[in-house]
Amino acid sequence: MDTVARVSYRVIYGDTDCGGVLYYGNYLRLFEIGRTELLRQNGLTYREIEEKEGLILPVAEAHVRYRRPARYDDLLEIKTWISEAKSYKVCFNYRIYRQKELICEGYTVHAPVNRRGKLVKFPENILAFLQDISLSSDPENQ
Amino acid sequence: MDTVARVSYRVIYGDTDCGGVLYYGNYLRLFEIGRTELLRQNGLTYREIEEKEGLILPVAEAHVRYRRPARYDDLLEIKTWISEAKSYKVCFNYRIYRQKELICEGYTVHAPVNRRGKLVKFPENILAFLQDISLSSDPENQ
Amino acid sequence: MDTVARVSYRVIYGDTDCGGVLYYGNYLRLFEIGRTELLRQNGLTYREIEEKEGLILPVAEAHVRYRRPARYDDLLEIKTWISEAKSYKVCFNYRIYRQKELICEGYTVHAPVNRRGKLVKFPENILAFLQDISLSSDPENQ
Amino acid sequence: MDTVARVSYRVIYGDTDCGGVLYYGNYLRLFEIGRTELLRQNGLTYREIEEKEGLILPVAEAHVRYRRPARYDDLLEIKTWISEAKSYKVCFNYRIYRQKELICEGYTVHAPVNRRGKLVKFPENILAFLQDISLSSDPENQ
Repeated sequence: MDTVARVSYRVIYGDTDCGGVLYYGNYLRLFEIGRTELLRQNGLTYREIEEKEGLILPVAEAHVRYRRPARYDDLLEIKTWISEAKSYKVCFNYRIYRQKELICEGYTVHAPVNRRGKLVKFPENILAFLQDISLSSDPENQ
Repeated sequence: MDTVARVSYRVIYGDTDCGGVLYYGNYLRLFEIGRTELLRQNGLTYREIEEKEGLILPVAEAHVRYRRPARYDDLLEIKTWISEAKSYKVCFNYRIYRQKELICEGYTVHAPVNRRGKLVKFPENILAFLQDISLSSDPENQ
Repeated sequence: MDTVARVSYRVIYGDTDCGGVLYYGNYLRLFEIGRTELLRQNGLTYREIEEKEGLILPVAEAHVRYRRPARYDDLLEIKTWISEAKSYKVCFNYRIYRQKELICEGYTVHAPVNRRGKLVKFPENILAFLQDISLSSDPENQ
Repeated sequence: MDTVARVSYRVIYGDTDCGGVLYYGNYLRLFEIGRTELLRQNGLTYREIEEKEGLILPVAEAHVRYRRPARYDDLLEIKTWISEAKSYKVCFNYRIYRQKELICEGYTVHAPVNRRGKLVKFPENILAFLQDISLSSDPENQ
């Protein structure tokens, strides 16, 4: 079990804007990459949750704090972990680094919804899985 | 009937890249805006083709010639027309201007596909519609 | 003076994702459109702030609450206003509607930075402008 | 020397559209990833060309043929090689696969431009480099 995902990401021209930096909206793409890999490295794919469980996990809330600009060709590291998993929601946390430098941090809150778009509880096996890999405290203060 | 669509588009930060110009891949977003509005102004929406006819129109081919860079906050005009409509394909042409200056031109070729992903002929009513609004010669050389 | 900007936006294929809805990161593009038009309709463009004042306004923080999904071809309205303008920061608020239905709300916080990337105070004329168009209470509860 | 770059790419939600497939404009992002890595694996970065040589390589032309749809979570391989390098232009070719299946192919043509936006010849060392890694015939027909 690996409770923190660390994914490398190389910034391309298409991610940046004419201010010379990674466009602020594109950090949410990096967050998506982070949470997908956190699930995958623990043996579950988002695609399976959709296909086997008939669940989707739409984002209810997103928050981003931009600490320093990231630039073209920077090699970033996206750290992702789950800070909370309950029957009706799961919360992913993110920090993006360029080597030791903190570029950005944030979180997203997701609520499980069935194929007809109705809010539902997580099935027990999924909830247990999410709780198993969730962290009760900040992984960088340990 | 209006065989050429003219749509205004204001370039945002999110469209540009760190070279200071509209990112080359984002021109295909502008082409999409152009062809959607060409259909809509003639009384058909792409959404209706999907929902009523069960057809989708995936892109089979796209070509872009980049003439001059477009920049942040530029007000562009997207001109779109149909140059060819046959049973198994439709071809949209595009020119993007900043006032009189040609920024970009290109085309896309689309083939009708049913809900199971199989190539099909256009239904007669759709084909007649597309042929009615198609142009046999370049609208700017007339 | 018009303290609330209302901008129409038509959702394109390129904005959506395979969940059938507007991708969560693309709401930050709509927020950008909103705040740019709020400034413009009051006589100032973001481009002028950059070129004349040598200031850029990078985003320090962004928050989004996703209320209901937006879909392909939806015609959305982006409402934007300034809730706070101080020497070192300005806060934009956003609500996105599909007719009467609230789709999304959020805010962004921006800090003025000079061409060398150093945090600076807003020049007095810009600060006065931002304070003139800022609202002390929610425009929809009045 | 490695004349063909092979880069893996995992499709994210943010790349797809509500048709359930990779959005047609986003293939140009994948092409960018391919050509950047082709240069890098041969010891040159695009960033260096910009910073040391004062050259940028804007795209003059792009062509894409969409063979089969790519979907969420697909693991794609982007193959890139140079088919032509002359004083005033370089041509990159691309094929994108999902395992053995050809998803998309295309090319981009780039012309060297100096910092003032004027078309210039490639410096001799850069031209020699590009010609060294260019292929006179299709790498998959050998």
